[in-house]
Amino acid sequence: MAAPPRSADLSTVKALLFDVFGTIVDWRTSVQADLAAWGARRGVKANWQRITDEWRGLYQPSMEEVRAGRRAFAPLDDLHRESLETLLARHGLDDTPEEDRDYLAKVWHRLAPWPDCVPALTRLKQRATLATLSNGNIALMVNLARYAGLPWDVILGAEVAQAYKPEASVYLKAAALLDLEPHQCMMVAAHNYDHHAAQALGMRTAMIFRPTEYGPAQTTDLEATGPWDIITDSLGGVADALGA
Amino acid sequence: MAAPPRSADLSTVKALLFDVFGTIVDWRTSVQADLAAWGARRGVKANWQRITDEWRGLYQPSMEEVRAGRRAFAPLDDLHRESLETLLARHGLDDTPEEDRDYLAKVWHRLAPWPDCVPALTRLKQRATLATLSNGNIALMVNLARYAGLPWDVILGAEVAQAYKPEASVYLKAAALLDLEPHQCMMVAAHNYDHHAAQALGMRTAMIFRPTEYGPAQTTDLEATGPWDIITDSLGGVADALGA
Repeated sequence: MAAPPRSADLSTVKALLFDVFGTIVDWRTSVQADLAAWGARRGVKANWQRITDEWRGLYQPSMEEVRAGRRAFAPLDDLHRESLETLLARHGLDDTPEEDRDYLAKVWHRLAPWPDCVPALTRLKQRATLATLSNGNIALMVNLARYAGLPWDVILGAEVAQAYKPEASVYLKAAALLDLEPHQCMMVAAHNYDHHAAQALGMRTAMIFRPTEYGPAQTTDLEATGPWDIITDSLGGVADALGA
Repeated sequence: MAAPPRSADLSTVKALLFDVFGTIVDWRTSVQADLAAWGARRGVKANWQRITDEWRGLYQPSMEEVRAGRRAFAPLDDLHRESLETLLARHGLDDTPEEDRDYLAKVWHRLAPWPDCVPALTRLKQRATLATLSNGNIALMVNLARYAGLPWDVILGAEVAQAYKPEASVYLKAAALLDLEPHQCMMVAAHNYDHHAAQALGMRTAMIFRPTEYGPAQTTDLEATGPWDIITDSLGGVADALGA
């Protein structure tokens, strides 16, 4: 497939494909607060911020096992659960009951949106189809959307493609299931890696800076590393650029 | 898998799985009106009601080719397009331009909901996850939801399972992707065949009568042919029964 012509004209964009963790929801603040509240209820003390950051630190390595072909595709809920087991052992929390482990592993279903998101998504939904293109599995994305009030039209992404971003198949499967060409789709994400993958496949790209996603000392994704179509610091900026 | 215990208690229902054509949208009135409007614009005369009914008549036979293993899974948009070609030839409309054929084949993306549906879905969304479990493909379901204002949480169904209802895999795949057991899911449909399939797998069942889906002379699905959990004549009745 030849790359489509690039243009400043965004009128041909029919669907927006959203990264979710970090782009739409503030996972770091939410997970830390949820773990801390559980600890307070159970009388368990730990460094919840550190556990949160270590949990996210295990995210890419766990998916890399799948990408590298060393294990079959497994949904992110399973990877999150496995990483949690590692962390509970590492932090001396081995006596956490099974039922609580189930509850804690699903903290990723209970994340608050960045404040600009729900109003901007409501505007954008009038302009284009809103699809998730997350590495989160379908049940996780559905529960998160219901928790955070995210008005998606459709849940796509890793589980639908049985592969993890930035594998090309994840992006291409989403476009195909929407019966759209890649150039009719725009990736919306706070991470340059998503845009490098999507643009190489002929998709449009909207970068939103989330400079505190990883906390106040964040050093990554503070600037655009490619010629993205939209570069902004809020989802409202994407809506403005698309005339929504 | 053992069948779960049946009970009048519906409090364990976490997700509602919806049939769409006939149950949620009035395809017969909508398709006829859309084709007639196209005919008026193009100066084409035909018996649009008869073409509509014949088109729907080709629906089950076209899916049966897939169910019987005589052809690979193909999305319903493709089956609809093939049936349209048959009908245009049969009704002397062979000179219909290609672009118009694309437009007409997608009339199934432009169907009006029965009047009780949007208010009742809005109530039900507070109570449970709302998933489509239609034989329509994902792009069709997404476009139809946007056209008709249907507030689904997630699009599941035939294309996700690569099989057509009433194949058991379509129902079971939906429950699995929602991370639910079958007994936590309730099939909502205007057709007894859906409930026979769903109940045999341990799902709960809600029958809504749509006695004019096939027009004033309809003879099918006018009564329940099994012990469905809810039997009602509107989607509001389902919301009432679930306490939504």
